[in-house]
Amino acid sequence: MNNEFYTFKGYQLHEKYALTISMEDYLEMIFRMSVGEVRVNELAKNLNVRPSSASKMVDNLRAGGYIDFEKYGVIVLTEKGKQAGEYLLHRHEILHEFLCLINNSDNELEQVEKIEHFINENTLLNIEKLIVRLKGEC
Amino acid sequence: MNNEFYTFKGYQLHEKYALTISMEDYLEMIFRMSVGEVRVNELAKNLNVRPSSASKMVDNLRAGGYIDFEKYGVIVLTEKGKQAGEYLLHRHEILHEFLCLINNSDNELEQVEKIEHFINENTLLNIEKLIVRLKGEC
Repeated sequence: MNNEFYTFKGYQLHEKYALTISMEDYLEMIFRMSVGEVRVNELAKNLNVRPSSASKMVDNLRAGGYIDFEKYGVIVLTEKGKQAGEYLLHRHEILHEFLCLINNSDNELEQVEKIEHFINENTLLNIEKLIVRLKGEC
Repeated sequence: MNNEFYTFKGYQLHEKYALTISMEDYLEMIFRMSVGEVRVNELAKNLNVRPSSASKMVDNLRAGGYIDFEKYGVIVLTEKGKQAGEYLLHRHEILHEFLCLINNSDNELEQVEKIEHFINENTLLNIEKLIVRLKGEC
């Protein structure tokens, strides 16, 4: 065969991203919630996970320099966390807009939540261009 | 929030697909290899996994009614396996064509291998239509 195939799991093992898939989910949600005060309990509630799981992941994000803790357990994004969170939310919104556009629907949340982690910056940029093109034709 | 968010892991736990992500990877590869005789060792080699892992997954596929064993350890697809394998390969090829088209590249294997599992039939159909439309405009 010409190409190197790996299983889905194989690809994950071959990667060395600073952010894991779970960390991306959490950071995107923290960024969404950052219009107000973010605490572990509400974060866990919004992501349908146990507070203990959220607490662990929040520790990972802090270790990675994405968030800090303020008084009373308030989670705040660092500059690095803000930039990453903004990109994650942007990626989410672009993919959602694209899938809604081609499927003529208004909710493609489940598919977006699953694929967004694997769409690279180049593809995202070209999907953005494609959206503009498709909208211009309507 | 209006929508129910889950983490990537959460979505996986909420699903009850007959085929898991790994089973899809294996079945797609078995279908690719089915022009010749398929054996566990070559399958493992093509998927960059250990033969013991391949052996286990092949057992799962047999339990699911997707494959059978013939003499001398040759893996053969059942009718159910053929249909599923054909769909998986078709999905793969459509997504690869789409990403190559928008990214103006000739290899998007890694991204396709990651996202293909999460693209539903409706989206796939609409991506097929979009490819026709985009090609018509060139």
